[in-house]
Parts: sequence; structure tokens; C-alpha cells
Amino acid sequence: MTTHATHQLQREKLDQIPGILREVGIDCWLVWVRETIQTPDPVLPIVLGADLVWPSALLFTASGERTAIVGSFDVDVVPADVYDRVTPYTEGIGDVLRGELDRIAPGTIGINESRDDVAADGLTSGMKALLLEILEPTPYAKRLVSAEGLISRLRGRKSPFEQARIRDAVRITEEIFDELDGFLAVGQTEIEIRDFVHRRMAELGVGFAWQASSNPAVDAGPNKAFGHGAPSDNRTKAGHLLHFDFGVQSGGYSSDIQRMYFFGSPDEVPAEVQRAFETVRHAIQRAAEFLRPGVRGLEVDAVARGHVIDCGYPEFAHALGHQVGRFAHDGGTLLGPPWERYGDSPEGIVEAGNVFTLELHVPTEQYGQVSLEEDVLVTETGCEFLSHPQQTLRCIDR
Amino acid sequence: MTTHATHQLQREKLDQIPGILREVGIDCWLVWVRETIQTPDPVLPIVLGADLVWPSALLFTASGERTAIVGSFDVDVVPADVYDRVTPYTEGIGDVLRGELDRIAPGTIGINESRDDVAADGLTSGMKALLLEILEPTPYAKRLVSAEGLISRLRGRKSPFEQARIRDAVRITEEIFDELDGFLAVGQTEIEIRDFVHRRMAELGVGFAWQASSNPAVDAGPNKAFGHGAPSDNRTKAGHLLHFDFGVQSGGYSSDIQRMYFFGSPDEVPAEVQRAFETVRHAIQRAAEFLRPGVRGLEVDAVARGHVIDCGYPEFAHALGHQVGRFAHDGGTLLGPPWERYGDSPEGIVEAGNVFTLELHVPTEQYGQVSLEEDVLVTETGCEFLSHPQQTLRCIDR
Repeated sequence: MTTHATHQLQREKLDQIPGILREVGIDCWLVWVRETIQTPDPVLPIVLGADLVWPSALLFTASGERTAIVGSFDVDVVPADVYDRVTPYTEGIGDVLRGELDRIAPGTIGINESRDDVAADGLTSGMKALLLEILEPTPYAKRLVSAEGLISRLRGRKSPFEQARIRDAVRITEEIFDELDGFLAVGQTEIEIRDFVHRRMAELGVGFAWQASSNPAVDAGPNKAFGHGAPSDNRTKAGHLLHFDFGVQSGGYSSDIQRMYFFGSPDEVPAEVQRAFETVRHAIQRAAEFLRPGVRGLEVDAVARGHVIDCGYPEFAHALGHQVGRFAHDGGTLLGPPWERYGDSPEGIVEAGNVFTLELHVPTEQYGQVSLEEDVLVTETGCEFLSHPQQTLRCIDR
Repeated sequence: MTTHATHQLQREKLDQIPGILREVGIDCWLVWVRETIQTPDPVLPIVLGADLVWPSALLFTASGERTAIVGSFDVDVVPADVYDRVTPYTEGIGDVLRGELDRIAPGTIGINESRDDVAADGLTSGMKALLLEILEPTPYAKRLVSAEGLISRLRGRKSPFEQARIRDAVRITEEIFDELDGFLAVGQTEIEIRDFVHRRMAELGVGFAWQASSNPAVDAGPNKAFGHGAPSDNRTKAGHLLHFDFGVQSGGYSSDIQRMYFFGSPDEVPAEVQRAFETVRHAIQRAAEFLRPGVRGLEVDAVARGHVIDCGYPEFAHALGHQVGRFAHDGGTLLGPPWERYGDSPEGIVEAGNVFTLELHVPTEQYGQVSLEEDVLVTETGCEFLSHPQQTLRCIDR
């Protein structure tokens, strides 16, 4: 991404902050980080677009001020056209930070700590201890609150710049699936297929939305559990299914799409596969028809989950959808069931500008799982598919 | 890195853990992570070599047991030839984790929390809260201690695999500097020079030891403060200095080297530049002669700092040296002064197998800063230069 584009992103996102701070009732947001190459805070690419080495404080107020306190060697990475004030220090940040807080005098200070939303949990445990030590002689130590609500809204409400980048990532992902239509044949290994995709990604200059070792996931035939495992020497075979879970990162933003192929002609698709495919496709369609601003994540999940159960299938052991943004799993409100491992993220409210996956699978007796995943953008009144929903099995007859 | 190589690394490192646990008096080490693509724990590449999505617990005991408790979709990424036991879960990790701890019954449990060592501070603040909630009904909530001492030793004592990877990274970095001898000329911009280095890195298939935007740092002429800023349109000029700070990542391990060039013949080097260069070179040499297992980081820093002051220069505003490993800044003991911003890391004890940078600069009146950086491996009796220490200014006379 060019420096110019980075700054446009930050300007769009930083412009959102004061309004959201007022919505959530926080006076000041403190992004408190160090050595962000080792321990990155997920919000940093959005608010800064660079790494910081020494302990650093980025302060955003409800009145719109943007201040960066950074080590003297890090001054150059803070964009002067985005931040109002850049204050360097050499020996220690404590005095400067306390001074700046005294000037702002916030009643509440949001910090990046969240039990349930990983994207809002960039503050490490040792850095929190260091912050408490620095603030100990001040009233501010007792004014720290979780910035979870702020970050969830800030990440979730995709700005025009962000929406355009995600559309690009989805388009490139679909282009590569279209190329796979011409490449795939019976007798290929999952690894050969994976290598084709990686080669095309390199040629197109895009990165990985998640780790390369399982991106794309390539699952040939009935005997492989879908998951985050690596492609194997399993071979495609006539009469078998082939499953992909694939996402690229382009311009810093991600896609996440699953597609199903069948080796044979359309009239050879077994009935139990066809029924499974229609069940998954319709469950996604029904969830998309329900999805709109104001509903809770778990309500959307329940629509698809209910459809699958109504069709006589066991329910899928994961959430229907997660947000997509810089990461394939971008945190915030989850379209998921109220299970312990999801914390309270399924309780979140869907907002316009959110980008979600809609994904699920059902089992078949003889052909393994049938699984699809689409990407959708929540609009003011409903949602728009960013991917072109898969309507039929992609049949490869060679 | 191949899967095979990754597992060899993990086997070497995991073999070190029981002994270090006994040294530091911790019964069990708990690596407690989730969505590690968004919030990576710096120890994960060493102990697992893959990313995990759902809340996951990796448990290592002083008796040598290695257990992974991970979400069902993550089972495949845990190497079965490295871990004794992989326990999957679907709805929530709480019961499984409590059960496993009851079986181990540790008196102390190390967690990745550190005020001063970023590499030992991978536990996020929200994940700590979640852990305390899960352990609340057990005696283990009160048995948590910082694993800082364990992680510092584990990362710091480079295994044979790790030493070989760092030597590779240093060799490749020096090869690119050698190529620069043939490329550099008067009238080039910093950006042109940076682009040459990036092209060669891509051709050689190596990554960046820190962010690409300031790697290499390229500083032409007297008017640029060295730091983490990006190369600019400044041009090289006859009679001027050119400075590089450059590190690659190869096979997952890093180098970090600074070099100084002069545009002109060796007999045209100004006396004040020559004196500055000799001061920096000798300060590094004296620190290397002093560096050995058992000394404290701040003692090593004091040797170089004292030399610079004795030569009549102002002291440098940073630490003499940091550890190098997976990251250019790899945490642990620092060869640094006892300043607030370094916490207690300069108090750490140097150990055999540590890899450090030795780096510093002094100012000149008319030519800007003169700065060098070498990489050294601590041996049983002293240290070995991994880089070939720069002995003279690299003169470019065209």
C-alpha cells in the first residue's frame, strides 16, 4: 500500500473516532503499545499504519484531538498530516504521558482490553501493569475502561476506503476460482492444486488472509475433516467432491470464501450431495435475507442453524459468520451461537458497513462434507453479497 | 521453512524447557493464546510453529510433558511428533483445562506476562481475565507467576538450528552489502538505493527483519536523523557519508547490521569522520572483548558508552545492543543503560548461545552521524563475531 493510501485510510478511520467515543461514553482512547512487530495491537494498522518500538501512547479524544507520544527514534513513522501533535521522548514516557492526561483531564480512558473480542484485546498483560505503575500517582489509574465497544464499532463500520479494498480482495479470489475451473482435473493432489493457487497469488501480487499452510484449504474426497490443516497427497477422483476455503489479502484487506466442486457432469451429481448443497445454499440465502442493521449476531446464526436442523441435518460446530476486514477473522460482533467459547460476541448488534462471512456445512453419508462461504456487506436496509453466491456445484468433467 | 525444519526447531527448543523450568523454579508453563494471527504470542513460532484460532492452552511441565488443548478445527496444526498429547474441544475449553491442571497439579504456573521483556509478554490483558475466570473455582488462579525468566532463557539460548539460521541471515545481509559496493554511485536517491536492496532480497527469497518501509534505513548526507523513518529523495553526493541499517529474515531468523559508506577515495575521508569512525569501531571492539557469559547487560553497555565519552563524544541515546533471533529486537537481556524505558532488561545476565547486536553512533560537525552495528554470538568464554566487523569506511569513488 502506498503511503498516500495508508494515510487516507487513517484519516477516514480517525474521523470516525470522536463520534464513536461519544456514543460509547468514553472521553479518551489510549492505544498503549511497544515493539509492535513482536506484539502487534490489531488496531495499529488502522490508526497509525506503522510499527512502533519504544512504549508509545496514541491518544484520541471525544473532542477530536489526536496526539502521539513516541520514542525519539519513532517520530518519523507518525504521519504529521494525520496527527495534531507528535511528542517524542528519550529516557522515559511516564512524565510526558501523565502531563498529556492532565491537559486532557478525561473522566474515562478506554484501553484495548477485551475478554471476548480479540481485535479489541491488543493490550498485553505486562503493558497494562506498566501503565498502572505510571498512572499510580494520578487519578487516571482508576478511570480505565475497556475500549471494546469503541473498537468493535470502529473496525466494524467499514469506511469507503476499506469497502473498496475488500471488494478488490473478493474479486481477485473469485478470479482465481474461475481459473481453477480451467485447471482442475481428476488425479491431481491437494498439494498440486494448492501450488497452482499460490503461484497465481504471487503473480497477482496478493497476500494471504490467513496462514499460507492452510490457505487455500483444499479437501479432496470424503475422508478429510475440514479445518485449518494443510493440503495433503489426497487425489481428486471422478465422482468425488473437492472443497476450498480460500482468502487473499489485497491492499491490507481480506476475503474469505468457500467453494465446492464435483468431478463429473452435472447429471452425475448424487442426490444426497445435491440435497446437502441446496440445504447449505438456502441456509446462507435465508440468513442473508434476515441480516440487517439492528439484529443481534445470534439471531442471524439461528436462522441458518434452524434451516439446517429443519432439513434433518446435524447443526454445524462453528459460528455462521465472522467479520472480515484486515483479517479474515476480524473480531467484533459474531453471527454465532451462544456458546462459551464465543464469549458475548454473538450478543453484538449488526451495523451498516459491517462485512460478514456466511458459512456452514452439512455432512453426507458417502461424500464427506458440503460447505460454502460467502462474503456480505451490511447496508442501511439489509445486506449486499460481495461474492457471487455459489448457485450450483462447479462440475469438472475431465 | 519446511514442515520438517519447523519441527526440528520445536524439538530442540522444547527439549530445553524442562531444565529451564527447574532452574527458574516453575512447575508448569502455560502458553494461553487465541486468534494468533491477530494477537501473536512471540513464543508461539518457537513452541508450535503454527497459528491457533480458538482459545488454546499449551502446557509444558518440569518433568518434560507437552500437552496441547486446542479447538477441534485446530487439531491438525499441532505436530503430533512433537507433542505428547493433543486434546481437542468444541464448545468451551474451561473444563478440559481445569482437568488437565488437576492431573498435573502444579505448585506454580508460568504465564507470558512481563513488564519489561516484550518477548515474554504475549498474554493479552483480556486473555488473562478469561484465564482467571476459568481458574477462579480452582487453587491455580493463585499460582500464576511470570514466565519471564523461562522465556528469556529459552529464546536467548539459541539452539544449533537457530544459530545456523542466524548465520544464514547474516551471510545474506553481507552479500547484499557486497553487491552494494558495485551498485552505489554519486547522485542516487535513498529510495533508488532502497529499491535495489529490496529487489535483491526478493530475488534471494528473504524477508524483512523489521518493517520494509525502513528496512534498509538509508541515510545520505549530514541532514538526516537516523531512526526508523523511510528513505527519502535525498541524494548521495561526493564527500558525503551514506549509512545503512539493514536486516533480513531467512528461515524465520534475523540479522541486523549497520554499515557506513563514504563517497570519495580513502585519502579524501575528512579527519573528523575518520576519528568518529575509529571511535565507533573501537567502542564495539572493546565491548566485544568484554562480552562473556555471566556479565550483566548494563556492564557491557557501560564499556562502549565509557569509550565514547572518553573520546569526547556525547553518549548515544539508545542501548548498545539487543538480542537478535526471530525478530531483530528479540527481547530478553539488553546491553543497555539503566534507563526507565528499558525497565530491568539491562540487569539481565548474558548467557552462552545469546546473539546480540553491538551498535552505536557518534556525531560529526559537518557530516552527520557515524554509526555501525555488528552481530555477535556469545560463546562459553567470550563472543564470536557473526558479521565481519567493518574496519574501514567503504569508499565509493564514482
